[in-house]
Amino acid sequence: MAGLTTVLTVSYDGARFNGFAKQPGLPTVQAALESALAVALRRRVGTVGAGRTDAGVHALGQVVSFPRREDDPDATALRRSVNALITRGIVVRDVRTAHEGFSARFDACSREYVYRIFLNPAPPLFLADTAWWRKRPLDIQAMRAAAAHLVGERDFAAFCVADSARDRITVRTLTMLDIDFEEHLGERCLVVRVRGSAFLHSMVRVIVGTLVEVGSGARTIGSVAEALTVRERAAAGVTAPAHGLTLWSVEYLPEVWVPEP
Amino acid sequence: MAGLTTVLTVSYDGARFNGFAKQPGLPTVQAALESALAVALRRRVGTVGAGRTDAGVHALGQVVSFPRREDDPDATALRRSVNALITRGIVVRDVRTAHEGFSARFDACSREYVYRIFLNPAPPLFLADTAWWRKRPLDIQAMRAAAAHLVGERDFAAFCVADSARDRITVRTLTMLDIDFEEHLGERCLVVRVRGSAFLHSMVRVIVGTLVEVGSGARTIGSVAEALTVRERAAAGVTAPAHGLTLWSVEYLPEVWVPEP
Repeated sequence: MAGLTTVLTVSYDGARFNGFAKQPGLPTVQAALESALAVALRRRVGTVGAGRTDAGVHALGQVVSFPRREDDPDATALRRSVNALITRGIVVRDVRTAHEGFSARFDACSREYVYRIFLNPAPPLFLADTAWWRKRPLDIQAMRAAAAHLVGERDFAAFCVADSARDRITVRTLTMLDIDFEEHLGERCLVVRVRGSAFLHSMVRVIVGTLVEVGSGARTIGSVAEALTVRERAAAGVTAPAHGLTLWSVEYLPEVWVPEP
Repeated sequence: MAGLTTVLTVSYDGARFNGFAKQPGLPTVQAALESALAVALRRRVGTVGAGRTDAGVHALGQVVSFPRREDDPDATALRRSVNALITRGIVVRDVRTAHEGFSARFDACSREYVYRIFLNPAPPLFLADTAWWRKRPLDIQAMRAAAAHLVGERDFAAFCVADSARDRITVRTLTMLDIDFEEHLGERCLVVRVRGSAFLHSMVRVIVGTLVEVGSGARTIGSVAEALTVRERAAAGVTAPAHGLTLWSVEYLPEVWVPEP
C-alpha cells in the first residue's frame, strides 16, 4: 500500500561489520541490508535504523524502516528473500508495517542494551565473541549501588565519547540499569541491562567500564555521582570493549503498527 | 605426586575439529590438547577422554585424564599455560587430581548431553553454530510421550550407527530425557537433555532425529517403541546434525578426587 512504512527487526553479529551505519568502502550492516533489499524489492531504498551501533557491537532486535510501495512483496516473502540474499552474520527476524512517515529512529520510545561480562579465571568459549572476559571477581553490590546514581534524568556528558558531548544536550533518562547473573550456553556471566529513551555515543560502554572499575575496587561508588556533576569524560571510567554489547530491543507505541495490507 | 592422575575439564567448539579422538593428519581436540600439554609439562602424555565426540559435536564439560608426575606444575599454573598455548576453540576450565589409575572414560558414572533445536521460520544468528534450525513448529507433547519410551534400560540397537551395533551389546540405561524450551543469547530454542551411564555411537543424535520426526508428524509415538524391539537402524529416524549437540558434563563418584598435593 502506498504511503505505508516497512519495518524490519534485524539481528547481527557485530564482529563482521564496521558498525551499523553506511560508510563508503566499508562493510556495514546498513549497506548489506540495502543491497539485499535492492534485489528483493527491485529498487534502491534508503533505510533508517533505530540505533547507530559501533563496529563490533551486536544486535538482537535492531529496527530498520523504509517507505513501502504498493507492489512490494508481502512480509513473509520479503523476510525469506532478504534472509536468502544477505551476507552471513545478519538475520531479518520479522517484517511489520507501520503508518506513513514512521521512522525507526525518531519514533522509538526506548532502547534496551545488554552488556555481558564473563567473570572467570579461565576464558569463555561459547561466549568468547559476545562477552567481555574479566579474570578477577567483581563486587556486585558496589556496582549496583553505583548504578543507582545513574538511573533517572541525568547529564551524561562524562559518559560518552568526548567529541559527541561538545555543545550538545547530554541529558538523557535511564529507566533501568540492572545487574544480574545469567547462564548462556552453559557459561555463567554478569549481565548489565540498560534501558532508556536515547543514548549518547558509547554511553552504555562507558557506563559499564565505570561500573566495572567500581566492582574491582579501582574507584569509589561516590566517584560515579561525581562524574555526573563534573561533566568531563576523564571523570568516568574506561570504555568497555564493543563485543560485550548487544542492542537488545527497541520499543514503539502500539499505535504505530498497521495491519499488513 | 607420583601415582596420581591429573584430570582436566575441557570445553571446545566442535566446528573447528575432526572430533575428539586423535586421527593421523587431522585436527582433533585430543591432538591439540596433547601438543599443548607436551609444552606445558615438558614431556609427551597420552590422554584419555570421557566421551569420543564426533566431528562437529561441541563440549562444555568433556573430561580428560593423564598420569601425573611429581614435578608437574600445580593446577592453576597448568590451566593457565595450557590455555595460553592451545589453539583457538578449546578452553581448559578446571584442573583436578584423582587417585592412581583413574580413567576419565572408565570411571565415569554418567554422561549428560544437550541438543538444541532452533524452531523459527527465520534462521538463528547467535545460535547458528550450536543449534539445529527447523522452520516448522513441533508437537512437543508428542515428543515427550515418545521420549518416555526411551527412558530406562533399553536395547538401543536401532538408535546408533549400524556398524557399531553389530555383534555388540547395545543395551544402555537412560536416566533422563527431558525436552524443554530455553533462551540463550536472546534466542529461544527447544533443548533435549539426555543423561545415561554410557552411549552408543551417534545415539543421542539418532534419538533426537527420531523425536523430531515424531514432533513433525512424520512418525507415530508407537513407532519409537517399535524401533526398540525391531533393533534395526532403519526403524529409527534420521541422525540429527552434529552441530546441535554438546557433551554437557560427566559425573564421577566423589571418592575419586584427591586433594592437590
